[in-house]
Amino acid sequence: MAEYLIDDVSPYYLHMEMFVTTIREQANDEQRAYWLPLIESWKIIGAYAQTELGHGSNVRGLELEARWDNRTKEFVLHSPTLTASKWWNGSLGRIANHTIVVAQLLLPVPGAPEKYVSHGPHPFIVQVRDMKTHQPLNGVVVGDIGPKYGYITMDNAYMLFDNFRIPHSAMLSRYSSVDVNTGAYTKPAQPALVYGSLTYVRANIVHHARLVLARAVTVAVRYSTVRRQFQDRDGDKNGPEMSVLDYPTVQIRILPLLATTFALHYTGLAMRAVYQNARQDIDKGNFQSLAHMHSMSSGLKSLCTMLAADGIETCRRAMGGHGFGGGSGLIQLNNDYLSKPTVEGDNWMLTQQVAAYLIKKMTAAVNSVDSPGADETDARFKEFVRNKRSGSGKQTFNVLNSDLDIVKSFERRATTMAYEAYEQRVIKKQNWNSLLIQLHKLSKAQSQSILVTTFFEAITIDKTLSAPTKTVLLDLYRLFALYTVENEGYEFFRCNAVSQGDLDSLPSRVQDLMARIRPHAVKLVDSWMIPDYLLDSALGRYDGRVYEDLYNRAHRLNPLNRITFNPNYWEEEIVKGSGDNVANLLAKL
Amino acid sequence: MAEYLIDDVSPYYLHMEMFVTTIREQANDEQRAYWLPLIESWKIIGAYAQTELGHGSNVRGLELEARWDNRTKEFVLHSPTLTASKWWNGSLGRIANHTIVVAQLLLPVPGAPEKYVSHGPHPFIVQVRDMKTHQPLNGVVVGDIGPKYGYITMDNAYMLFDNFRIPHSAMLSRYSSVDVNTGAYTKPAQPALVYGSLTYVRANIVHHARLVLARAVTVAVRYSTVRRQFQDRDGDKNGPEMSVLDYPTVQIRILPLLATTFALHYTGLAMRAVYQNARQDIDKGNFQSLAHMHSMSSGLKSLCTMLAADGIETCRRAMGGHGFGGGSGLIQLNNDYLSKPTVEGDNWMLTQQVAAYLIKKMTAAVNSVDSPGADETDARFKEFVRNKRSGSGKQTFNVLNSDLDIVKSFERRATTMAYEAYEQRVIKKQNWNSLLIQLHKLSKAQSQSILVTTFFEAITIDKTLSAPTKTVLLDLYRLFALYTVENEGYEFFRCNAVSQGDLDSLPSRVQDLMARIRPHAVKLVDSWMIPDYLLDSALGRYDGRVYEDLYNRAHRLNPLNRITFNPNYWEEEIVKGSGDNVANLLAKL
Repeated sequence: MAEYLIDDVSPYYLHMEMFVTTIREQANDEQRAYWLPLIESWKIIGAYAQTELGHGSNVRGLELEARWDNRTKEFVLHSPTLTASKWWNGSLGRIANHTIVVAQLLLPVPGAPEKYVSHGPHPFIVQVRDMKTHQPLNGVVVGDIGPKYGYITMDNAYMLFDNFRIPHSAMLSRYSSVDVNTGAYTKPAQPALVYGSLTYVRANIVHHARLVLARAVTVAVRYSTVRRQFQDRDGDKNGPEMSVLDYPTVQIRILPLLATTFALHYTGLAMRAVYQNARQDIDKGNFQSLAHMHSMSSGLKSLCTMLAADGIETCRRAMGGHGFGGGSGLIQLNNDYLSKPTVEGDNWMLTQQVAAYLIKKMTAAVNSVDSPGADETDARFKEFVRNKRSGSGKQTFNVLNSDLDIVKSFERRATTMAYEAYEQRVIKKQNWNSLLIQLHKLSKAQSQSILVTTFFEAITIDKTLSAPTKTVLLDLYRLFALYTVENEGYEFFRCNAVSQGDLDSLPSRVQDLMARIRPHAVKLVDSWMIPDYLLDSALGRYDGRVYEDLYNRAHRLNPLNRITFNPNYWEEEIVKGSGDNVANLLAKL
Repeated sequence: MAEYLIDDVSPYYLHMEMFVTTIREQANDEQRAYWLPLIESWKIIGAYAQTELGHGSNVRGLELEARWDNRTKEFVLHSPTLTASKWWNGSLGRIANHTIVVAQLLLPVPGAPEKYVSHGPHPFIVQVRDMKTHQPLNGVVVGDIGPKYGYITMDNAYMLFDNFRIPHSAMLSRYSSVDVNTGAYTKPAQPALVYGSLTYVRANIVHHARLVLARAVTVAVRYSTVRRQFQDRDGDKNGPEMSVLDYPTVQIRILPLLATTFALHYTGLAMRAVYQNARQDIDKGNFQSLAHMHSMSSGLKSLCTMLAADGIETCRRAMGGHGFGGGSGLIQLNNDYLSKPTVEGDNWMLTQQVAAYLIKKMTAAVNSVDSPGADETDARFKEFVRNKRSGSGKQTFNVLNSDLDIVKSFERRATTMAYEAYEQRVIKKQNWNSLLIQLHKLSKAQSQSILVTTFFEAITIDKTLSAPTKTVLLDLYRLFALYTVENEGYEFFRCNAVSQGDLDSLPSRVQDLMARIRPHAVKLVDSWMIPDYLLDSALGRYDGRVYEDLYNRAHRLNPLNRITFNPNYWEEEIVKGSGDNVANLLAKL
């Protein structure tokens, strides 16, 4: 709780997350028994070093080598090139003394012991700094990479190895192992398991996105209610100025994002449930839900972090001049969050995974179109293919008057695009890379469909909601969905998911929905109950005392005002009364 | 040139720009003769204080009062509320000793000398700090407002006045004045002239946007050419990894922005020419081009700063992990530039001015539809109305095969939307505020049309271009235009500006154009000739030595690596060997 409220990422963060999680998930029982007590008592501090200077997305392309020396029974860690330097690894730049290191496992070819072959990247646990002096061990070069966009409290590392020897026990061997006597390799039964923790991290990112966006929307809604500017042009010229949130051009930037926070909330919960169920299945040896979970978490990570990152900046700009000021409370939030569209799977890279999954599902559906659906997606795909063959199912949906039809409209668009991708790739054998933009759009359509469906089902199922609350939530659902349709209008039209008449009516419908939500906007952001302490925002204060707080930060708290600069170039003294002058400064250089 | 290369805004910036410009444009001859020599010799340092804590966009709502005291022949500056505090005023927080102050001019009502009436905001020149001690004068509270998103080298101010008296000569009186004997007011002949310098600033912002975006695109194109990741999925698995700029999903983010830099270039030049011509007309007493210039500069300021600001961030994200690092050179560029969508007219506010102008033009066209067009816009509007009445002119344009048809397609969309806005406001008498979103879209369509038209005309007219250069520029023109059409597909379709068949073909046409431009991408960014010194970017180096530079910045230049932190919570010393420990630090607090 203290960490959350302080709102700075801890330089010990990786120790508590990826380091310990990797030991728990990838270490064998003996390794767990040795390392976990040291980690949990903080006797060692660990990090996680995977990404390199030259390789991030392409994990199989990592260059750091772990070569098995069968004579000494050691692995030799070696960075053959500059680009093999580990890079970006948090908690490792100045803090950690141990780290997980992901390296290419090089083993001798059976029968030709001088020849080595790579078995791909594997995790090792490695001590890199002396426990007493905290200096890098011989053969290790490690340090902090310097400033970056956000995350100023985190010590991201570079690290190179020069023929650095580690014992056989360093290789985490729950799923794959090297025989200490023969150097023979045992590969994991289910390779995807190695990436389990990454799926966990992605599911958490989806859940986290809602709170980040809720912070920005809380500030924007509260400030734009307090802020007044201009009388109504067609109204009383001497009346009070209007709250800026009463302008449709401010509403259209903030209120769809308010609706998005709730969409993200319900999808975050659903994503967690899917992850936990899949995890339980896997523990029972059932891997059927793995592909679905992987696709869902990849697509949602991509879409939700984009919605949140862009949403913060939209909120900030919607607040005009004061949004650029430090009193907004959004500057560090924005700088820190801008890492999220890139880390843990680049948002554009990830969409390929979703598309590949959907093309596979569509291929299966086409090939057994008359058998019962194996799951929801399969059933929907089969119905689509049957309708396509029979020429039926061509009516569009009534998205303006039926909440369920909105769900169906999003489904049809995503299904149509999945079919088109299947046609291009499977039937027409198009080059994969030539389809990437189309596949990215497919993933987005699919993930938007999940958001809309989950939002609608959550409101419908929840019997604890009072009637007025449910009414407002349904309006938020409609706003989120129809605003999305409007922005991607032609795609919905092209996929026969929305009629031209409905598309022409969308702008005024969206405006009507915003007018209905406007009176509830402050209460809706208050319902997130984000404390002022965390917001750290003059504009977003719960009590609305925006201007007093801004003035206090400037006039009383800004230490710069205690210094009196001398603005005249022809006088030597720089700060009045300090004795500092240009000659002094030059002498120091 | 030094200032430009240093790439930090100078805290003296307002002295050299708005301060001296306002004296030149708003002071009468006597005031000019007194102040300009002091300004030009830096004997005084000036700023420009207009915006207040409570009012930015609504200049007429400023609260600071300048009340004429006819007994003492002085104005009394007074801030009646906290929100009347000046705010954001650059160069004034710590540096300036003088400033332009914009305040409500309060004059006694003739015949009722105890009653005062406001004649609106007027500029005054005011000394606010002592010339020897640099301390605020009695009756003035002034200081720096503290941190903000970017512009860390600028001292933005807050400032309040407590019945602070300034002489009659303080009011800048080129266009309006107060009679020193009677207190009678003379108003300017042409009120719009007062805002002349703002139009100048906006025209400059349009011209500046191209260079800012060119910097980001230069970095992105160079880095994504050097950066390689993954072999071709359908190609040789053991071949070299692909340049990431060969992936369509990287191209679609960077290459349309490369095309945008050239679109902004030609429109920036055109905007300057329009401004200079209008200025010459005005000096001759001809105000006909004022409204067109004002509308054009407002709409383009809004669109071009949005394209540049969003473009920087798109480039940054397209560079993956290293885009988040300090080596990108885009962090300060982004932080500083993010002020531009807000300052000098908020990007959403400004679009009302464009729409109001177009509605007025359309009203005039409708009312004299058969007379010859007074200017290009008038002729186009009249033709549209005539076609509408006769039911002709319904064929769409061949945007895939005719460069001129692209221009016509953008014009038809903008004209159709201008007519719709006219219908809503003039015929149906809709409330102005209820139309704001629609008017914003109209302004965007109009400004996009200007960008496309100007780009096409510039290439067509320029006889100095070699044939190969012209071919590439035409492809950039097509990419910029068709990418824009694709993103606003439904609007073009709805306005009968592009056919459904053409819209369906757009994605593959855009992809073809990108493939054609790709081999020229590095040369095209090189043609901007932005020096490495200004780029300050490991990723964007002219020589492509990206990884060496990143490593140098981390391993050799980062001073943090000279400090060895102690990571153990149970030991007192924080920095190894420093003697600093927790007890010492607590004792200091």
